[in-house]
Amino acid sequence: MLMAVITLLTDFGNDDAYAGIIKGVILSINPSVAIVDITHNIDPHDLVQAAYMLDASWRFFPAGTVHVVVVDPGVGTCRAIIAVEAAGHIFIAPDNGVLSFLLDGGNVKRVVRVENESCFLASVSRTFHGRDIFAPVAARLAGNFDIRKLGPSVGHGQSVRLDLARPFINRPGEMIGTIISIDRFGNLITNIDHRRIESFCRPATGMAMEFRVGSKKVVGLAGSYQECEVQAPLAIIGSSGYLELSVNRGSAKQYFSAEKGDLVSVTC
Amino acid sequence: MLMAVITLLTDFGNDDAYAGIIKGVILSINPSVAIVDITHNIDPHDLVQAAYMLDASWRFFPAGTVHVVVVDPGVGTCRAIIAVEAAGHIFIAPDNGVLSFLLDGGNVKRVVRVENESCFLASVSRTFHGRDIFAPVAARLAGNFDIRKLGPSVGHGQSVRLDLARPFINRPGEMIGTIISIDRFGNLITNIDHRRIESFCRPATGMAMEFRVGSKKVVGLAGSYQECEVQAPLAIIGSSGYLELSVNRGSAKQYFSAEKGDLVSVTC
Amino acid sequence: MLMAVITLLTDFGNDDAYAGIIKGVILSINPSVAIVDITHNIDPHDLVQAAYMLDASWRFFPAGTVHVVVVDPGVGTCRAIIAVEAAGHIFIAPDNGVLSFLLDGGNVKRVVRVENESCFLASVSRTFHGRDIFAPVAARLAGNFDIRKLGPSVGHGQSVRLDLARPFINRPGEMIGTIISIDRFGNLITNIDHRRIESFCRPATGMAMEFRVGSKKVVGLAGSYQECEVQAPLAIIGSSGYLELSVNRGSAKQYFSAEKGDLVSVTC
Repeated sequence: MLMAVITLLTDFGNDDAYAGIIKGVILSINPSVAIVDITHNIDPHDLVQAAYMLDASWRFFPAGTVHVVVVDPGVGTCRAIIAVEAAGHIFIAPDNGVLSFLLDGGNVKRVVRVENESCFLASVSRTFHGRDIFAPVAARLAGNFDIRKLGPSVGHGQSVRLDLARPFINRPGEMIGTIISIDRFGNLITNIDHRRIESFCRPATGMAMEFRVGSKKVVGLAGSYQECEVQAPLAIIGSSGYLELSVNRGSAKQYFSAEKGDLVSVTC
Repeated sequence: MLMAVITLLTDFGNDDAYAGIIKGVILSINPSVAIVDITHNIDPHDLVQAAYMLDASWRFFPAGTVHVVVVDPGVGTCRAIIAVEAAGHIFIAPDNGVLSFLLDGGNVKRVVRVENESCFLASVSRTFHGRDIFAPVAARLAGNFDIRKLGPSVGHGQSVRLDLARPFINRPGEMIGTIISIDRFGNLITNIDHRRIESFCRPATGMAMEFRVGSKKVVGLAGSYQECEVQAPLAIIGSSGYLELSVNRGSAKQYFSAEKGDLVSVTC
Repeated sequence: MLMAVITLLTDFGNDDAYAGIIKGVILSINPSVAIVDITHNIDPHDLVQAAYMLDASWRFFPAGTVHVVVVDPGVGTCRAIIAVEAAGHIFIAPDNGVLSFLLDGGNVKRVVRVENESCFLASVSRTFHGRDIFAPVAARLAGNFDIRKLGPSVGHGQSVRLDLARPFINRPGEMIGTIISIDRFGNLITNIDHRRIESFCRPATGMAMEFRVGSKKVVGLAGSYQECEVQAPLAIIGSSGYLELSVNRGSAKQYFSAEKGDLVSVTC
């Protein structure tokens, strides 16, 4: 039996009942679905972090998966909700830029504005659209409901893009990126993807690259955490393809005294 | 295929293996069940918070769902365990008041004391009834086991009620409630439900209501988070029907310097 | 329908997308599997804690369950990955000792080194084997893939054992153990299992046992949390069969000012 998959990516946390309630609504409409938490611990209202985490995750799910993103500081305003069909997956999110990477990725087949109230819960609150709109719509989409019935198609250029923190060339030979997320191990995950590193520096000179956060630096790009001594820092292309600063069996967050949002300088 | 649903609402946290072990026991007895975490992060032994969170959640699950509540400071004593059939759902919990709302709600069809040891694990510890009693009983109930076989029926008036913090009229024109829970966004969730607000104040005068926590207040009841300026406080009926104090894109917990258990005054 | 079960026990935490991504990979390969989190909150790189938590958990899952343990400080080095068939369950973990209890337990049927790259994701990173190796291998094993096809069998004596903190007799009448884990309730879980307690002290003299952590002690072994007064300390055999120090409706962590790794003295 093939169960449809729905993923949830929210900033609701694990302490409250919000994520559980969303699952109840989904299972009430579509009982034969597997629901997977990507995470509920996006920093509250952090659209950039959510956009990067979605980008690192969705490709690893089966084709046909419905990905629900509820990071929604504008809930209750007139912000739209959009459903997007792209690369064989379906996404539903507030039209607030959290799908920026996807919309710019070139695989978008269709974007619709979610307006068909017959797909929502009978009573829609103004504070919890995750429960009242996102959950019932996702349950239907996972049951092969035609996305075009949700509302009018819109050109995908019309949807909101985040002014995503993106790396930039500060001066010849120096690229500046940002720490987007810090994981449980203290790894500093930046917004500089491996292609930028490769095009910025010839691989031949990769070992001469210098990575700086605050007053500390590390030289050379490592291939694994183990290429340096225990407790020593390293720069590495992480598992989702972005530059990370790490400490072998230690915490780069501590080593570099870094916080989310801090800048990273790459020179070459 | 319709999978039965079992929900879990506990104070076990997400750090330890307790919730996972409960799921193992359930799946060992009933492999075709979908298990949903409502939350495992009820504050340890906080029966009032658990009662409110269950009340906000269970209606959103499919009819026939078995809801397991394990907030159980009296584990190992002679406190009873009860199973309740109400409104087409089944609940199993210690008889410690955590089902107070349900038992007072008027939809109760049957309450039984869970005493049939043939439904428990072969060896019952004195410290982890979640694993040894609640899980195997829930697995059976989700498989259409007759609830009456669990033990003797009891009048639902006999079960323990919490002396739940309930709002009260302090003096003419002033109602006092309590902050039951503070969510991840810093919203202060009170025990004052929307019907009390409505009967206390004529809607026409709703805009004149004043809400006070500690030394700070807010005037008027908002319809959405966005009706005030960013970082400004507001009072709103939250998604589960209770009065909440919030800050638009900010934290009411910080704004009001509030803690769980603090009082809220509503004047009108 | 019998769904196969896969459990996950990792130190990835609940904040990042790592555990969700692993589930995506599993469901992409084997959609009819139930995935259960034992916990993702093992203290980073704490192999001893993971070994104890696995030992307390796996027996409660159905026969045939595939248990995936990813606590893997050596990811990216030449450390092996092993799959173990034991007591009707299957385990996959880095060969770093995290399966020590299992390997020493006497029920091991087969140990193989996981080397068959055709079972991995097409592209294997050097930092996230949970996604690239453990998940796809587990998905296959849960689908009745023959474990012997994963790689060469090895004698189970060859696999790495942890120098697990184990209790020892310090001097006649005194046993020393270690606090392995502290749960959300503040219970101090030690590495002293009930058989050691029983063989160390005749039950008849059990009431005379003395348990000491730091400068505080408690006398006698209790049968339940309730045998002493509220807020009083007690020693008890916990639900997984190990000695625990607790406080009735309070926190032993606070009472004893204890930290994970602290020693426990038992005299008799």
